[in-house]
Amino acid sequence: MFKPLASPALAQFVAATADRNMTKAAYVAVANGVIMILLVTVDPAYQAAHRWVDAVLWGSLAFFVFEWVVRLRHAFVAQHGWSYAVSGRGLLDAVAAAAIPLALILGADPKTAWLLGAFWMLKVVPGIPGLRQLRRVLVTESGPLLSVLVIFLMVLMLASVALYFLERDVQPAGFGSVPAALWWAVATLTTTGYGDVVPITPLGRLVAAVVMICGLGVFGLWTGILATGFAAETRRDNFLKTWESVTKVPFFAALGPAAIADVTHMLRTMDLPARAMIIRKGQAGDCMYFIADGEVEVDLPGKKVRLGEGAFFGEMALLGNNLRSANITTTRVSRLLVLDLVDFRMLMARHPDLAETIDAEAKRRALENR
Amino acid sequence: MFKPLASPALAQFVAATADRNMTKAAYVAVANGVIMILLVTVDPAYQAAHRWVDAVLWGSLAFFVFEWVVRLRHAFVAQHGWSYAVSGRGLLDAVAAAAIPLALILGADPKTAWLLGAFWMLKVVPGIPGLRQLRRVLVTESGPLLSVLVIFLMVLMLASVALYFLERDVQPAGFGSVPAALWWAVATLTTTGYGDVVPITPLGRLVAAVVMICGLGVFGLWTGILATGFAAETRRDNFLKTWESVTKVPFFAALGPAAIADVTHMLRTMDLPARAMIIRKGQAGDCMYFIADGEVEVDLPGKKVRLGEGAFFGEMALLGNNLRSANITTTRVSRLLVLDLVDFRMLMARHPDLAETIDAEAKRRALENR
Amino acid sequence: MFKPLASPALAQFVAATADRNMTKAAYVAVANGVIMILLVTVDPAYQAAHRWVDAVLWGSLAFFVFEWVVRLRHAFVAQHGWSYAVSGRGLLDAVAAAAIPLALILGADPKTAWLLGAFWMLKVVPGIPGLRQLRRVLVTESGPLLSVLVIFLMVLMLASVALYFLERDVQPAGFGSVPAALWWAVATLTTTGYGDVVPITPLGRLVAAVVMICGLGVFGLWTGILATGFAAETRRDNFLKTWESVTKVPFFAALGPAAIADVTHMLRTMDLPARAMIIRKGQAGDCMYFIADGEVEVDLPGKKVRLGEGAFFGEMALLGNNLRSANITTTRVSRLLVLDLVDFRMLMARHPDLAETIDAEAKRRALENR
Amino acid sequence: MFKPLASPALAQFVAATADRNMTKAAYVAVANGVIMILLVTVDPAYQAAHRWVDAVLWGSLAFFVFEWVVRLRHAFVAQHGWSYAVSGRGLLDAVAAAAIPLALILGADPKTAWLLGAFWMLKVVPGIPGLRQLRRVLVTESGPLLSVLVIFLMVLMLASVALYFLERDVQPAGFGSVPAALWWAVATLTTTGYGDVVPITPLGRLVAAVVMICGLGVFGLWTGILATGFAAETRRDNFLKTWESVTKVPFFAALGPAAIADVTHMLRTMDLPARAMIIRKGQAGDCMYFIADGEVEVDLPGKKVRLGEGAFFGEMALLGNNLRSANITTTRVSRLLVLDLVDFRMLMARHPDLAETIDAEAKRRALENR
Repeated sequence: MFKPLASPALAQFVAATADRNMTKAAYVAVANGVIMILLVTVDPAYQAAHRWVDAVLWGSLAFFVFEWVVRLRHAFVAQHGWSYAVSGRGLLDAVAAAAIPLALILGADPKTAWLLGAFWMLKVVPGIPGLRQLRRVLVTESGPLLSVLVIFLMVLMLASVALYFLERDVQPAGFGSVPAALWWAVATLTTTGYGDVVPITPLGRLVAAVVMICGLGVFGLWTGILATGFAAETRRDNFLKTWESVTKVPFFAALGPAAIADVTHMLRTMDLPARAMIIRKGQAGDCMYFIADGEVEVDLPGKKVRLGEGAFFGEMALLGNNLRSANITTTRVSRLLVLDLVDFRMLMARHPDLAETIDAEAKRRALENR
Repeated sequence: MFKPLASPALAQFVAATADRNMTKAAYVAVANGVIMILLVTVDPAYQAAHRWVDAVLWGSLAFFVFEWVVRLRHAFVAQHGWSYAVSGRGLLDAVAAAAIPLALILGADPKTAWLLGAFWMLKVVPGIPGLRQLRRVLVTESGPLLSVLVIFLMVLMLASVALYFLERDVQPAGFGSVPAALWWAVATLTTTGYGDVVPITPLGRLVAAVVMICGLGVFGLWTGILATGFAAETRRDNFLKTWESVTKVPFFAALGPAAIADVTHMLRTMDLPARAMIIRKGQAGDCMYFIADGEVEVDLPGKKVRLGEGAFFGEMALLGNNLRSANITTTRVSRLLVLDLVDFRMLMARHPDLAETIDAEAKRRALENR
Repeated sequence: MFKPLASPALAQFVAATADRNMTKAAYVAVANGVIMILLVTVDPAYQAAHRWVDAVLWGSLAFFVFEWVVRLRHAFVAQHGWSYAVSGRGLLDAVAAAAIPLALILGADPKTAWLLGAFWMLKVVPGIPGLRQLRRVLVTESGPLLSVLVIFLMVLMLASVALYFLERDVQPAGFGSVPAALWWAVATLTTTGYGDVVPITPLGRLVAAVVMICGLGVFGLWTGILATGFAAETRRDNFLKTWESVTKVPFFAALGPAAIADVTHMLRTMDLPARAMIIRKGQAGDCMYFIADGEVEVDLPGKKVRLGEGAFFGEMALLGNNLRSANITTTRVSRLLVLDLVDFRMLMARHPDLAETIDAEAKRRALENR
Repeated sequence: MFKPLASPALAQFVAATADRNMTKAAYVAVANGVIMILLVTVDPAYQAAHRWVDAVLWGSLAFFVFEWVVRLRHAFVAQHGWSYAVSGRGLLDAVAAAAIPLALILGADPKTAWLLGAFWMLKVVPGIPGLRQLRRVLVTESGPLLSVLVIFLMVLMLASVALYFLERDVQPAGFGSVPAALWWAVATLTTTGYGDVVPITPLGRLVAAVVMICGLGVFGLWTGILATGFAAETRRDNFLKTWESVTKVPFFAALGPAAIADVTHMLRTMDLPARAMIIRKGQAGDCMYFIADGEVEVDLPGKKVRLGEGAFFGEMALLGNNLRSANITTTRVSRLLVLDLVDFRMLMARHPDLAETIDAEAKRRALENR
């Protein structure tokens, strides 16, 4: 039987793709595929290297078909096959795998069929870092954004009708119908300004000038709304990310929940890979670090000290020494909490007990390393 | 007699239109009408389908005339006829109903007369969601916005005079008068840049470069002002909307007015239609909900529980369980208050009594649903 | 002797112009003058109406000469003549008055000489409302704005050199020298995009694409900086304006200085002319008013009540009645302090004694007006 | 031997350049060099003045070679030669000095070789004032900025493929391949809109309209993100700069650390050159000053008083006198802390003891200067 044999490899593959949302292989396949689609349409380039181009394209396609089939099979094995197949993710995988073969079978010109590979790019979407944040902003601010869009459309329509009325006789080619005038209006209101169609009557130009200034206004409103939404979302996001980590650091354990909320507002989360240098000896320092997860190595003269979860470092630079006194690197993937000089002082002022703890530790270290 | 017969239907119709600011029928009529106006001006399309196009146009017009007459009659019945007739709303209705017939009677070309239907779109204005908010921002920030507009106009005028002086001899067609140069200036200062008129002398280009950079500056100022105003307005708007709802939730009744103001800042109002899924089983959760108005249904294994006004749900996800444990949907149009994880923690820290209430309820539910 | 005769009229004139920064007459002269300058350059219009145009132009010029001479004379009478003559204001007045006659005497073409009238517009500058605020923002943020400008110029130069190198052979007309390429670069980096010069080599287009994206970035930075500066400035400005007024309202006199600072943050100043309607009967109300300066008239059924400095009104709408119950208009120029519903609730929560005062007054009024 | 002789001069030169990051001479050389590079490519100008142009170019080059050699030598003398040579700074100096001679030796056309002088401009980078701040914003916000960039690229690619498909048959010149369509897409999505390639089919125009509106959206997101990041960074920066100074002013020494953090948020740092006028007699005043570093001279009638580090002035304008009563100028480079009227009142309200100190001093001064 086939299933017991193939399953572990499949499970592993699916876990890998599910884990980081897409394996690196898929990214490579997308990148290669898209570049080749560009080349397919450039006649001289394609004729010179059509074997290579075709090979990469078919390779990418094969990968996506394989990926889809494997995921589909795995989903059915786990008995939630249809829910994957009709989910956004599953449909996208299906399109990426099946659209091009289908088009070829239906007799489309190969050059045209491969264009459908542009949809492969959508496979990258779940991997975009701040996307969830962006979506939340758009959802939260959808009300005002829609208002601006409606205003935008109304200005568009009124401007088109006005320009059609004013310019149709002198420029039948450019303003011969309202849809034609709409093309001019959208290029003007977005301040794109192709210049392929331009009003020439004085009144037409007056209306056009008003449309352009409205364009600036729409732009400004849109940006203002997004900026407002984004500021709120950023605050929220940082807080959530940091709260999880703060509660893991014993240093803050003594604080009550109100103080923890306070501290959380001051800290910033930073994720680092292994072997990343956090502090370079001799640099000016304006923040200290708490280890929420992972481990760092302090490169002292003559010995190496390792600090684990819950430890802190870099406090000396904030207590008077402006220059860092040792190199510090991560030994494995770590999550640090960064406390800026600004907030360090605020925190020390509000919680003198924390200040004492840090002071004592700093003195102990200074003695030890003398 | 006519009045007693027609009145109830009229009253109902007017109530319906007044209630949601415009019936759905009116929206449909506007959308259809505007699309047909686009088609009227496209000769081949119009010739192919002129019967249908004309039918829809006359239909829309008839609807607006009917709507106007009904409202006018109703207003007179209620003895404030003239106040409606001369209000912004009434005048708009009059224009929408009477402008096109009037133009046709006065002998205008039908194709031109129908263009007046573009004003129908303005009937949508009162229905735009965030419009009031936008207007408030524009009013509050009108001072600085006007300053920027004046600066904009001065740069425009000075640039036009300079370019007229510098380019009039080499490009009499494009810069032969200051108004002609103004056309160039407005297209440049708004960064639209049609390119139909472009300076060609070195000095003219230098001035043009400065104008473009000023354009960026004007843009930036405008946006900065609007963003500032918008941020303030959003805060204010959310507060007002939420305050009303908070005072209806018994859970918060025990709090003093200062604490209610506090809580109000943390909550977000969310309006939902009937049968909307709020929580999906298995999803990650980062907020809890209070029912300000309406009802929800919790889909527990083996039974369905309904929660009404003043109840809360989703708190378990915030108290440790990261995944939602049941589907929850609204049973009718509902207004919920959303408390984000961020603010939930802040609130619990400041009001330990609320924390206890929620904890107790969560435990009771956990026991019950075991 | 001339002086004693003319002085009172002069003093009055200067006081009038100094008071509101520019008399309305000057604004009219500027507006008329500028419109006529536009017309002078439009040949058909000028030929048709050259008498009128000339008359208005000479009239405006005469006004500015008169204004300058009067101010100069008055300044010398008051014995600080030179300090006015060499101040920015005095120099501007001198240019507005003397530049055109001088140009005509020096033999300039009249059409060209009148162009100097564009400087008349600068006389409007001191009268622009939020200008001081804008200037403060630009000064405070000058550091980062300059940084962005330097980056802008560097991208500009590097892009020009690159494009010159890449395109000079294929497009000697458009990219034949670095200054010519600079013209293209500035039109591209500001996203104006005239399209008169466009790269056609693949590499040139790649560089151009990067330049366009940099343009978006520069734009974004610029706007971000201005938005930040503007938000800070607005807060500061409102506070200053309001503080002055708050201290004059006896209602707030009982509060300590810390509470006054608190209250000041919540209030907004509003300046109104005489006979302005503040509240319209039947409208929805979401704020209350304190009279810092001036007087209002409440139009109650059967009688009119006047409220003077220090009184408040509109509180009923915030205490339960959503609709305004009377028309209220100013009787003379007044300054009101506006308290939004949001802040009203916050204030009442923090200062229960104020809440009582307002409640008592509201009840007294309700009884009285029954 | 050469070393002992040359070293002091070298040390001095290097110290000078290192100190302010670049001597003024280098700035002059860069400015001159870049202007000449512009001229080299303008044939008539170059032919007219090629001797001067060449002289300045060779002079600039000689300066950069000299600067590089001196720094390199000094670095080796100080025994960290290679670390300078391979640092960003050292490599830039090397390119500025060696690229042009190398190109000339390798047989490049002189006109082309001098173009490499455009890299000289990068020597200005470390001297740009707010650059560190800008970089921090870009780093902090890199996540969302990258997201927007990825979205930008995806829209770009999808639009190109769509337009290629729709327009390739009717416009083989402009949309004959996907890379060609990409050129159109980037000019459209950034709202640059050259207009050299423009869709002409109805469907193509529809897609183009959507792309333009997406362009506005991308713009808005980008700006919103940068504005948010910038606001946070500005707050942080001001705090750091001010904290250092506040702790030096004895007036604030009595305050505890929490109050100092409070005060720091209210003050603004201002660096002034010698002989700068801070306060002009008779002006309206809305802030007071503390001297963190340096000295000022008060020009009282009949005598001049000097105030040194830790003193304050300008407080009278905030205590009732709206007009400044004396000219005050710096005697040497000074750092002042500015306290706005807004914050002055807030501070006085929270720390009545400070209010008394200032009051007493103001009275003492008023008596003394009577």
